[in-house]
Amino acid sequence: MKALLTPVSIHNVRITGGLFRERLDVVCQKAIPYQWSALNDKVTGAARSHAVDNFRIAAGEYEGKFYGKVFQDSDVYKWLEAVSYSLVDSPNAELEQIADDVIDLISKSQQPDGYVNTYITLVDPTQRWKNLRDNHELYCAGHLIEAAVAYYCATGKAKLLEVARRFADYIDTVFGTGENQLPGYPGHEEIELALVKLYRVTGEERYLSLSKYFIEQRGTQPHYFEIEAAARNETERQYDNTYYQAHLPVRDHHTAEGHAVRAMYLYCGVTDIALETGDRGLFDVCKRVWDNMVSRRMYITGGIGSVAFGEAFTFDYDLPNDLAYAETCAAVGVVFWGHRMLQHEADRKYADVIERALYNGVLSGMSFEGNSYFYVNPLEIWPESREKRNDRNRGRQARLQPWRQKWWEVACCPSNIARLIASLGQYIYSSSNDEIFFHLYVDSEAVFDVNGDSVSIKQETSYPWDEKVTIRVYPQRTKEFTIAVRVPGWCRRAQVSVNGDPLDITPYLERGYAKIRREWREGDRIELVFAMPVERIHANPQVRVNCGKVALQRGPVVYCLEEVDNGPVLADVSLPKSTELTVSYDKDLFGGIPVILARGERRIWSGDSLYAPATYETCPVEIRAIPYFLWANRSPGEMTVWIREC
Amino acid sequence: MKALLTPVSIHNVRITGGLFRERLDVVCQKAIPYQWSALNDKVTGAARSHAVDNFRIAAGEYEGKFYGKVFQDSDVYKWLEAVSYSLVDSPNAELEQIADDVIDLISKSQQPDGYVNTYITLVDPTQRWKNLRDNHELYCAGHLIEAAVAYYCATGKAKLLEVARRFADYIDTVFGTGENQLPGYPGHEEIELALVKLYRVTGEERYLSLSKYFIEQRGTQPHYFEIEAAARNETERQYDNTYYQAHLPVRDHHTAEGHAVRAMYLYCGVTDIALETGDRGLFDVCKRVWDNMVSRRMYITGGIGSVAFGEAFTFDYDLPNDLAYAETCAAVGVVFWGHRMLQHEADRKYADVIERALYNGVLSGMSFEGNSYFYVNPLEIWPESREKRNDRNRGRQARLQPWRQKWWEVACCPSNIARLIASLGQYIYSSSNDEIFFHLYVDSEAVFDVNGDSVSIKQETSYPWDEKVTIRVYPQRTKEFTIAVRVPGWCRRAQVSVNGDPLDITPYLERGYAKIRREWREGDRIELVFAMPVERIHANPQVRVNCGKVALQRGPVVYCLEEVDNGPVLADVSLPKSTELTVSYDKDLFGGIPVILARGERRIWSGDSLYAPATYETCPVEIRAIPYFLWANRSPGEMTVWIREC
Repeated sequence: MKALLTPVSIHNVRITGGLFRERLDVVCQKAIPYQWSALNDKVTGAARSHAVDNFRIAAGEYEGKFYGKVFQDSDVYKWLEAVSYSLVDSPNAELEQIADDVIDLISKSQQPDGYVNTYITLVDPTQRWKNLRDNHELYCAGHLIEAAVAYYCATGKAKLLEVARRFADYIDTVFGTGENQLPGYPGHEEIELALVKLYRVTGEERYLSLSKYFIEQRGTQPHYFEIEAAARNETERQYDNTYYQAHLPVRDHHTAEGHAVRAMYLYCGVTDIALETGDRGLFDVCKRVWDNMVSRRMYITGGIGSVAFGEAFTFDYDLPNDLAYAETCAAVGVVFWGHRMLQHEADRKYADVIERALYNGVLSGMSFEGNSYFYVNPLEIWPESREKRNDRNRGRQARLQPWRQKWWEVACCPSNIARLIASLGQYIYSSSNDEIFFHLYVDSEAVFDVNGDSVSIKQETSYPWDEKVTIRVYPQRTKEFTIAVRVPGWCRRAQVSVNGDPLDITPYLERGYAKIRREWREGDRIELVFAMPVERIHANPQVRVNCGKVALQRGPVVYCLEEVDNGPVLADVSLPKSTELTVSYDKDLFGGIPVILARGERRIWSGDSLYAPATYETCPVEIRAIPYFLWANRSPGEMTVWIREC
Repeated sequence: MKALLTPVSIHNVRITGGLFRERLDVVCQKAIPYQWSALNDKVTGAARSHAVDNFRIAAGEYEGKFYGKVFQDSDVYKWLEAVSYSLVDSPNAELEQIADDVIDLISKSQQPDGYVNTYITLVDPTQRWKNLRDNHELYCAGHLIEAAVAYYCATGKAKLLEVARRFADYIDTVFGTGENQLPGYPGHEEIELALVKLYRVTGEERYLSLSKYFIEQRGTQPHYFEIEAAARNETERQYDNTYYQAHLPVRDHHTAEGHAVRAMYLYCGVTDIALETGDRGLFDVCKRVWDNMVSRRMYITGGIGSVAFGEAFTFDYDLPNDLAYAETCAAVGVVFWGHRMLQHEADRKYADVIERALYNGVLSGMSFEGNSYFYVNPLEIWPESREKRNDRNRGRQARLQPWRQKWWEVACCPSNIARLIASLGQYIYSSSNDEIFFHLYVDSEAVFDVNGDSVSIKQETSYPWDEKVTIRVYPQRTKEFTIAVRVPGWCRRAQVSVNGDPLDITPYLERGYAKIRREWREGDRIELVFAMPVERIHANPQVRVNCGKVALQRGPVVYCLEEVDNGPVLADVSLPKSTELTVSYDKDLFGGIPVILARGERRIWSGDSLYAPATYETCPVEIRAIPYFLWANRSPGEMTVWIREC
């Protein structure tokens, strides 16, 4: 059971227009330089990072003390990974030089035996591998490997890859079930998927085996985290093993549990191992956990993790809008995992979820300008409540802010969104021997090898704002092969034509992909029209908080109401079931976007009383909804995705 | 400005039938003996109390160590106070002997200088008066005084009153702005109102002055709590001064702030002092804080305190149903305070709030059987969420239980509800020289002195279940005076007749009381009919969580839906605006109560998806609502007061 599909390499795809070209430009031109400033503590008023300085100190170039979290290094690695992809899209010699310099620092900070971690090295080398559960050494190693692979693939420069290999080789000697090895695994998964990337780029099977070992060892008895905790005389712990997805061996997982980002990274690795080793059992684990997540534990925005404590999944249908956590990184993780599932099983259900996360819970994480970030992505906010209620402004819950922040003490999200958007090209297409799959509709060009022949593709679209997609096909020579276009799950009326001739796709549909097989000639044109009326979406009644409420979605984009457009007390705005929903293009808003307009109602409340007999007197109000991902880019205030119906 | 009205003494009133006779019997026959068992740790599975044992140890009768909170003594005092009132209603020699024995213990635990407090005495006598903010010594003193006054008034026995006087005399030497005095005041108010009671029973003006001192000194600068904290080298504090209503001098208070129970007790004392001293300024403070509380910060159940952290008020219109705290004691406190306001200003608005709290947020605190208690009284619960969400089952939030508990580690609520219900008689009537006020409708008899003549009153009613009240008047001799009957604020159609002749009360209405002045003869009969249709109540739109929802209220009783009657997922049940609401008397439920029946709707949801385009398909369901205060007496499950409308 090898992977069905291969994603297009970012070298063979280029995003040429539309929303993601614009977001990609923001990432390359603004976010990446901005993040470099933040990592170097050059942004006034931003939370301290010190992440690059930690490397400078570990490399012996600076005097000083480590500052930050045990996983501070990963911010640098994830930024480097984003830089790598950006250099493919937008070559930038100055940026590449900065990256090379950082790589030198990392290289110099590598210990003689291959170990790299500025926290352990600078703070307490005796703690190396002593607390796998909490200390994130393998997590940081994973991000180092991902950065190294990305930089190597982007630039051909192998220096960081060599650092990563030496580190991986060393890790391979330390961990395992052999004599004198530690039978452990990371508290925060990440290295599993990274080792598969390293295997793919180096061909070294040991990395694959090591990844498989980490996955299979996880959650087995005797429990490594318990043994380790006993060895350091730990008396109290904050989280149980579920938090780490280590409550059970992975093969016994049935539901999405614990820290949401960790879960996503773990299942990315599990899917990769299932793909590479043809392990149907592991893939079945992924399928059932995926289904549980998608059908019970995911916000309409693709956000996951509905409680701040543990940044975690809770239980089926528990999806409060105001107490949502829905960390940006977790939505990014959904895209990572969904992308892997999709290569394994060309079912649009995975691409539908990728779209749901991408256009909503991921994009919301970064401001329109690219220089501020959400950690938590609630679906409803009443800022006064966040500010004044002690159960909403303490602990992890305090990360729920009504406004994006310049930086975070835990700054995982900014570089995560950057590395995803910078590498978005590879999510658009996949191919097998003689099939080209269109998963996402993004204005772009790509080149494929179809059974030895080169086939160029040009996709022209303003999706998700516009319902039309034009695909132009340029095979090296006329050739029979399949173009599989995804009919999005949200779309109830799709029209397809080839060279102007309407095509009834019904007989060609396979798991949501219309598979058009024919002899393709240079300049052949497929036109797709995915009808994009505003859809009123209901949640399953089990999601108690959304009963009586509707979300507005157009195409894959979920909309929301903001106070700046609709006044305060959004909860009192209601949308009659019969109201017409109009799409209006606002050319002045965020460079031009479609907004949704409707006539709604508010109650008329006479006097100052708190409770009174119902009068049902209402007044009409104009409702204006904007894409959720663009909220909190104007003035702070209330926001809600779910709107009351009347 | 002396008090306008005098409440009826519990010696001159007797509750003879109806809901409160039944609740009073439960308190006297079940709750008081049960609480005695709990205070003596004789209830299997109940939280440990040790409160009586602490006195036995302090009295030198037992060996052992103090156990409990710094305010553990108050549980015994409040129980004694409840016992006192119960002995008036239901004489019980055995119970009185137990009380006498407890009083002996308290007396023996009194220190030579008059000080009483088992925590300080047994744990660390050097800490006496060292931490007024946290250690509750004056709070316990207040409850000792209240118990002493109640026991003296009930039985004529002065032993505990002497203990209380000696303690109060000693406190009077310790506190004040004189030389060698501590310019402090309690972190938890209570002694202020207690000293007024002591003054009233002893005539000793010093107690009144001391109470006034505590009130006036509170929140002044330099801030006593800060001075005290500095003296004990405190480095961290949990709460700011608002929690203690000590953020500002009392005369500068405008809103209901901080710990809700403390606030109620404080303003009881402030109202008392305003009453006794004729201080209009202090009364104005009470009026504006009252209005803020009632029109912005009170649940429809009369519950107050909408956040678990600090058991506190938050801000205007912040009244979440599921994160409600609404401590039983706080609703009891609302009744205490409202009762005092009412004597000052015969305005039904106070009695309306007393009723709101009494029939809902107070009665809900005790089980139907009188042997289990709610600490927190939410207006909505999804037990699975409480159980599994870490933001709902930790810290004070964990006191929100879907089921009443046998006892609590902090057991303030059980005895508080007992002492209120045991003394309920005095809340029903007040009188002035030639006016008798009917505040509450409770089947009862009472005797008044009307300008020197005795007037007996008999009130016959099944209120709140029935809308009819018959009042029979038996003056010693035919005499002109006023009977002022309250027309409840919830009532939109009140009919009054005197001796069968209908009376248009419109010209007689004064602040919600119909003042019927005439020559009353023996056997004169007033009949009141307060139309009691089921009212659909809306909340002010500013209460965001209740938008689109309706509460059902009949008379003063707020209803709720329970899972046991309506199935799970109550949030999906909706009530069409036009649905007829039927009252049906269920003779088998809780000894016979009216329930509300209606035809509602649930959505039909096809398939297993989490989100889907709205179809608006519904199926009819029978809705059954029971009085809120009776919830959680059958099987655990979901509950909601606010029901979605469609």
